[in-house]
Amino acid sequence: MSNQTMMAVVKEAAGPGLVYREVPVPEPAPGEVLVRVTAASICGTDSLIHGWEPWAAARVKPPRVIGHEFAGVVEALGEGVTGVEPGLRVSAESHYFCGRCHQCGTGRYEVCRSVRIMGVDADGCFAEYVSVPAANLWPNHPKVPDVTASLQEPLGNAVDTVLAEGVAGKSVLITGAGPMGQMCIAVARACGAGRIIVSDPNEYRLDLARRMGADIVLNPKVARLSGPVLSATSGEGVDVLVEVSGSDKALREGLKLLAPGGRVSLLGIFWGRVQLDLNEDIIFRRIRVYGITGRKVFSTWHTVSSMLASGRLDMAPLVTHELHMSEYERGFELMGSGRCGKVVFRT
Amino acid sequence: MSNQTMMAVVKEAAGPGLVYREVPVPEPAPGEVLVRVTAASICGTDSLIHGWEPWAAARVKPPRVIGHEFAGVVEALGEGVTGVEPGLRVSAESHYFCGRCHQCGTGRYEVCRSVRIMGVDADGCFAEYVSVPAANLWPNHPKVPDVTASLQEPLGNAVDTVLAEGVAGKSVLITGAGPMGQMCIAVARACGAGRIIVSDPNEYRLDLARRMGADIVLNPKVARLSGPVLSATSGEGVDVLVEVSGSDKALREGLKLLAPGGRVSLLGIFWGRVQLDLNEDIIFRRIRVYGITGRKVFSTWHTVSSMLASGRLDMAPLVTHELHMSEYERGFELMGSGRCGKVVFRT
Amino acid sequence: MSNQTMMAVVKEAAGPGLVYREVPVPEPAPGEVLVRVTAASICGTDSLIHGWEPWAAARVKPPRVIGHEFAGVVEALGEGVTGVEPGLRVSAESHYFCGRCHQCGTGRYEVCRSVRIMGVDADGCFAEYVSVPAANLWPNHPKVPDVTASLQEPLGNAVDTVLAEGVAGKSVLITGAGPMGQMCIAVARACGAGRIIVSDPNEYRLDLARRMGADIVLNPKVARLSGPVLSATSGEGVDVLVEVSGSDKALREGLKLLAPGGRVSLLGIFWGRVQLDLNEDIIFRRIRVYGITGRKVFSTWHTVSSMLASGRLDMAPLVTHELHMSEYERGFELMGSGRCGKVVFRT
Amino acid sequence: MSNQTMMAVVKEAAGPGLVYREVPVPEPAPGEVLVRVTAASICGTDSLIHGWEPWAAARVKPPRVIGHEFAGVVEALGEGVTGVEPGLRVSAESHYFCGRCHQCGTGRYEVCRSVRIMGVDADGCFAEYVSVPAANLWPNHPKVPDVTASLQEPLGNAVDTVLAEGVAGKSVLITGAGPMGQMCIAVARACGAGRIIVSDPNEYRLDLARRMGADIVLNPKVARLSGPVLSATSGEGVDVLVEVSGSDKALREGLKLLAPGGRVSLLGIFWGRVQLDLNEDIIFRRIRVYGITGRKVFSTWHTVSSMLASGRLDMAPLVTHELHMSEYERGFELMGSGRCGKVVFRT
Repeated sequence: MSNQTMMAVVKEAAGPGLVYREVPVPEPAPGEVLVRVTAASICGTDSLIHGWEPWAAARVKPPRVIGHEFAGVVEALGEGVTGVEPGLRVSAESHYFCGRCHQCGTGRYEVCRSVRIMGVDADGCFAEYVSVPAANLWPNHPKVPDVTASLQEPLGNAVDTVLAEGVAGKSVLITGAGPMGQMCIAVARACGAGRIIVSDPNEYRLDLARRMGADIVLNPKVARLSGPVLSATSGEGVDVLVEVSGSDKALREGLKLLAPGGRVSLLGIFWGRVQLDLNEDIIFRRIRVYGITGRKVFSTWHTVSSMLASGRLDMAPLVTHELHMSEYERGFELMGSGRCGKVVFRT
Repeated sequence: MSNQTMMAVVKEAAGPGLVYREVPVPEPAPGEVLVRVTAASICGTDSLIHGWEPWAAARVKPPRVIGHEFAGVVEALGEGVTGVEPGLRVSAESHYFCGRCHQCGTGRYEVCRSVRIMGVDADGCFAEYVSVPAANLWPNHPKVPDVTASLQEPLGNAVDTVLAEGVAGKSVLITGAGPMGQMCIAVARACGAGRIIVSDPNEYRLDLARRMGADIVLNPKVARLSGPVLSATSGEGVDVLVEVSGSDKALREGLKLLAPGGRVSLLGIFWGRVQLDLNEDIIFRRIRVYGITGRKVFSTWHTVSSMLASGRLDMAPLVTHELHMSEYERGFELMGSGRCGKVVFRT
Repeated sequence: MSNQTMMAVVKEAAGPGLVYREVPVPEPAPGEVLVRVTAASICGTDSLIHGWEPWAAARVKPPRVIGHEFAGVVEALGEGVTGVEPGLRVSAESHYFCGRCHQCGTGRYEVCRSVRIMGVDADGCFAEYVSVPAANLWPNHPKVPDVTASLQEPLGNAVDTVLAEGVAGKSVLITGAGPMGQMCIAVARACGAGRIIVSDPNEYRLDLARRMGADIVLNPKVARLSGPVLSATSGEGVDVLVEVSGSDKALREGLKLLAPGGRVSLLGIFWGRVQLDLNEDIIFRRIRVYGITGRKVFSTWHTVSSMLASGRLDMAPLVTHELHMSEYERGFELMGSGRCGKVVFRT
Repeated sequence: MSNQTMMAVVKEAAGPGLVYREVPVPEPAPGEVLVRVTAASICGTDSLIHGWEPWAAARVKPPRVIGHEFAGVVEALGEGVTGVEPGLRVSAESHYFCGRCHQCGTGRYEVCRSVRIMGVDADGCFAEYVSVPAANLWPNHPKVPDVTASLQEPLGNAVDTVLAEGVAGKSVLITGAGPMGQMCIAVARACGAGRIIVSDPNEYRLDLARRMGADIVLNPKVARLSGPVLSATSGEGVDVLVEVSGSDKALREGLKLLAPGGRVSLLGIFWGRVQLDLNEDIIFRRIRVYGITGRKVFSTWHTVSSMLASGRLDMAPLVTHELHMSEYERGFELMGSGRCGKVVFRT
């Protein structure tokens, strides 16, 4: 592919905005694999880079091709890569783990100390081609089409979040119904959760939540959560809190509605520090809190792939928009509007 | 209720057979509650008592009213019982735990050293009334009708069996498709298992297995399991083996089809000792084995009740026959024929 | 024992201070057991009641005999109590669980919704006799003398705190070296922890920490923890943080020193809300947080008793003072001074 | 090191016996590292190869340098190896995992489907030099001397065996007091187990067991285990059974002495199939069985290294013999006699 070019969505320089332009097709380095992208989906992180939010400004070094959720086909192999053939349908773990730190050495790649993230610290998949470490490739299941396969990376987060402990028969409150929250609904439903209660101030998302499997949807702008949550749980509060909103208010309200002995998973990212009443909300009720980032490599990928292939998880209602990658601006507008589920780009 | 009589299914004397006859309505002892039975279902154990199989002959002391799976309504309270009112819809944990042994003292009532079992060691529920310890009562959920509620006791076994470890995305082989196997299928399906493969020599049961959620059904009399199991699991073998048949041959074949690092739950009862190749089948592959009996009191009951109430578990296809208790002989014939799911008696 | 009197340490009225005076020997209610107290130890909670701190002022209703850690001998049985004989050496779980709530019904008595605490909500053990529910009694092991046996209740907290996950070979930072911190040191050491690092601003306590098994002791008033902690852990940070100080500063500093993928147990009670950087300190590093209160009934009691009886835990260095109960003021002064381990009263 | 020779213990041809002779120093292949061996210890597997027992005869292809437990110093690097420098003190995981199978891909290298074992399927460490995959190297801790470091591999088995579940305060019966059993004693003791009971027909080993930390040692040739085991556990039976003898009789007796709800770890290898009463011994008592082989890579290595470095584990009493490698015959005689702990070769 030497000397060839491709179209890509690029953060061109420090500051808001992106451009869609011709760039060289990447040359796979030793140990890397070049993948032709067929589907790529937008993550909230991409929106942060698009808008050049503080986190992005502090971390991303332009120019950078962005995007880290995708599916595609192996096109070419870098030096020393074995066990992979061109033509293989793949997705990839977006966290490039170092393989050498204490965490990697004990199989906990999801907390690698030197992680680099595709589309953030290395060129990403909002492009016709992307080069990724062979160690990060995931072979896609024949029964999982590419648009769905591009969702496996965030679905992995949802699986690790919801299943930090088992949910069979347990009541679950999910605060936040953006794309990650929607995926958490689907996972909870597929894994036998009892009442699934979802809160979000956005009615479009609440409607989608219902289609994804929520039993009760609540708008915290309309009424406090406590009445309906307690009523749905015989006054006990929920067994599980899944925080995906990144709102400190939602977290505090959720903790108050968690039954003694319950468990919280934290996936949403907060703006600044959060004030918590650790005594009442964590200690005196023996709450367990799980911080979640990334997904287990590759055990969670197996779970996700298997649940998609066997039909236990159905992402159809969630993919509300499929666009050509050149329509990237419309994609980010949709994400900003809150009137979408997942937006997937085709190349 | 003093001096009143009721109809009951009674093991009258040592030897095969049962009778349906008038007996006194039991007087609830201190700490007990009298329940009017509305639905009661047949368990394989009841068939063993009916047929006076060696286990039953060694344990049961006639005359004994049999039966231990039921739902009903609280009729009267023995001395000292508080917190329960007549009219409450209930089922009951059939294992009367002592509350004093080391196991009970650490909350593991399911392995009580001095357990007495309803319908085996004490009079049971194949009767118009049954008296049970108040500590064993389970208040039934308004959304769970009595016929379904009578299945909660064995469903608890199925939940503990299938969920000894999580099953999300995992391939599961269930050997044995009698009523307990069928319940295991439903639980595995409701909790997100990947491919669910079921083996049984009985075609009626395989057909039912499909309706309960099995992806693949196999008759070991027609062909060895290994071909289709390996083919369905990309040659890996299954992640989970659920042994419900009590056949040593099925267990050994199942173990060979279990992937290294996999797990087995044993619920089926075997005839005599079982020969195992522990080196190859357990040790060298780091298999974990869980022996299962009873169910956790009452955490498993919560799981079962919640999954029934929220519709995650649907027992409708499994209840193939509802009979009046006087038709008990037909019920046991059905159980013996293998051409039924659960048989539930109405009073 | 009707109409008899005994000496007791009493919170006489709202406000600071305690009195030592004659009160009636309690009459065991039905289901209760009267115990003659032989040893009773001071907990930080007792100091809060002594000083009439806000928590105590809001909760305790004088007059109240205080104290909740003890050992003694069964003296008399209330109505309906069976399975216990006068003369039995006992301690007791101080949390009087209701036995009826959802948490109790699932064996999680440590998070009972209607818990009443001995010496707080009911008369306690700083007295010659105390009456406790028979369900709360723990029979003391012949090899564990009464002074040691009186420490089992707080040792249970320490066991649940340190062993929320296994510690074999793991580096542990314990922030706070009051009596609870000291017990956590002993448990970590007895259970195979790797480097045990302890921080406290009190040199007396750091000295004691060393005798209890700490490998490294650090005074945060002298120098920041990060240098020696990172140096002791090859720059990795610790695997486990055990927060017993109730200092938000200690918690935040401890979290920064926790390795990605690590775990925190929270036992110390904080003054007011705590500000946390959940993103960096919990979520992006997949930290697990365990709030701890009480101890598992009675599985943790078994662990504690067994570790004391077999000599795995040695409380000798920790019991720095044994006083007669009439010397209660000196006991509380010692506790306030920080120049003591556990202070145990004899009657 | 090309064209140089070294001395090595070699299985020269099919049949019993070994020779000590000059062989070429291995050339590290790409991805491999040449290590100069300083200490190497004998495992029971080595004895099987020496004696050409059926397992060895079926698997080992002579000529083969044997041995797989060692410590040494990095001498030279094969092509493509980075992150390792000559002079580094190392041991190595003896199971050469493929890194590609489903098990490796989910971080479960200990159950790799295509494992090759050092000294069995590839040349081993009873030699002056051994070449091992760089991915298998473990950097030894400065505080752990080479003789001790050579024991880390089998200590890893012991850690995974004993700690399949926590042992704090739990009574443990270890059947078999060969070197692996002795290591299990040390691990159980270091991790807070309650009564540690050890059975073996060999009095030398029972004596050593006591020095390693056993509380009670029993010779099954002298008396049945049940009396003293029940007496030491208040009639309850033990909480944990650790089977290291490979004797089906010991396993069956041990299972009978396991309390309901208890757990078994199986590490000993059996001669042929084993007959078990699964109903009574596993199912009706909800026993959990863990088959153990290998050790977790590298989380268990961390545990072992940390416990050795911090002094929680002391292997001094276990290393009963240090010999020069040329004295290999005497080493195997000692192993065969049962009058030794670990026998370590120096080069």
